[in-house]
Amino acid sequence: MSEANPTAALVVIGDEILSGRTKDVNIGAVAEFCTDLAIDLMEVRVVADIEDDIVAAVNAVRARYTYVFTTGGIGPTHDDITADAIAKAFGVALPIHPEAAAMMSARWKERGIEVNEARLRMARIPEGAALIVNPVSAAPGFRISNVHVMAGVPVIMRAMLESIAPTLKGGRKVLSITIKCRVGEGSIGTPLAALQAQYPDVKMGSYPRMGDGTVMTELVLRSSDEARLAAAAKAVFAMVAAAHAAAGLPEPEPY
Amino acid sequence: MSEANPTAALVVIGDEILSGRTKDVNIGAVAEFCTDLAIDLMEVRVVADIEDDIVAAVNAVRARYTYVFTTGGIGPTHDDITADAIAKAFGVALPIHPEAAAMMSARWKERGIEVNEARLRMARIPEGAALIVNPVSAAPGFRISNVHVMAGVPVIMRAMLESIAPTLKGGRKVLSITIKCRVGEGSIGTPLAALQAQYPDVKMGSYPRMGDGTVMTELVLRSSDEARLAAAAKAVFAMVAAAHAAAGLPEPEPY
Repeated sequence: MSEANPTAALVVIGDEILSGRTKDVNIGAVAEFCTDLAIDLMEVRVVADIEDDIVAAVNAVRARYTYVFTTGGIGPTHDDITADAIAKAFGVALPIHPEAAAMMSARWKERGIEVNEARLRMARIPEGAALIVNPVSAAPGFRISNVHVMAGVPVIMRAMLESIAPTLKGGRKVLSITIKCRVGEGSIGTPLAALQAQYPDVKMGSYPRMGDGTVMTELVLRSSDEARLAAAAKAVFAMVAAAHAAAGLPEPEPY
Repeated sequence: MSEANPTAALVVIGDEILSGRTKDVNIGAVAEFCTDLAIDLMEVRVVADIEDDIVAAVNAVRARYTYVFTTGGIGPTHDDITADAIAKAFGVALPIHPEAAAMMSARWKERGIEVNEARLRMARIPEGAALIVNPVSAAPGFRISNVHVMAGVPVIMRAMLESIAPTLKGGRKVLSITIKCRVGEGSIGTPLAALQAQYPDVKMGSYPRMGDGTVMTELVLRSSDEARLAAAAKAVFAMVAAAHAAAGLPEPEPY
């Protein structure tokens, strides 16, 4: 992760993730989204449907990172308290937003759905926030300062991410090269650490695969400097080739 | 979540989760594990391979919850810094643990694997910690005070969870009933909130399914008091039945 890139944190809100009842897929989606925009996702927090916990998490990360994303807790039921928590975190009121109410009412009318108190909860938007359009089910998310509040339902969350993408400033694209190593991590840990020390500007990660009976470690090199990345990749490839030779294995795959 | 149950937090450590390159599955596994033991998982944090970030996250949660679990960063390469961070968080040294070294050396010898500096990194255990056995690949995790440090590779992480389960004190088992509602969340939000207010000791969650073209909201009621849960479920079922009738839908499925 480059120091120069914008940074981000994600706050996932919902008891159902913490009980294991729902398996989160939004962390991976937001992580890929950030990587594509060259925004460094630095931290994720999953918190319960407890107002003080949401307020504390959002306040901790919004002060620290360029962007904050939240998912979950913006539906119509009593356990959907994200808007309340965000309003509290920013110390602002939470009135019915006329445009949000109009957008939702139009959709409901079209479908013969009654406008009631529970549904109107979804039109409560912290004062000063801008709406994030929800093309799937009309109930919008919102952005206040650097905090982007989105739905937890993955299909809606992804649509909201796409709609905010043009408003975010990305960083310098990070390039990456993966070298596949067929000896164990333990056999190359020492020379890899020496190469990392030689190329401090090229981040080297080592990711073992396991469970399928074969040994495979993927060495992932990342840098926004193409020439340095190429030089580091050449050196790491040579190191892996030597480790393969010592173990009687063929040359590693070209990268 | 019951106030009386032990609580827990999970710290997931690894750049590969934050870049989206690896999709985490350990959060869901730890969440289910805690639910099975009636331990309330209150918070999850995903942090980068940055020592200060790991130290800060672990220190924040270990003071607050009964148990802390960590996953990731205990392998043999330079980017595996969890043991260093935990030692720093507790202000203790990080010597080679003779039993850990012996366990790993025995496994390596059996397989003709060289004992080297990188592999011995995995035998560095914070002073005062107890080992957590790794039946899959020998390199152990460890427990220091209330913090349980486990591998990130899911198959190893799950084996470590099983090995620590007998050492954890669970709470009062939470019972749950799920009622399937075929009208939208917005149609039942108001009466559901009223029922939640009537049964504050029965936690009511509302989880809409989406994306398959049908409307289905699962109302999940949880309590450790069987009689109160049954009474609340009866009331929620009657409310849903009325909402179904108003929409011309058949009686909800029995729960």
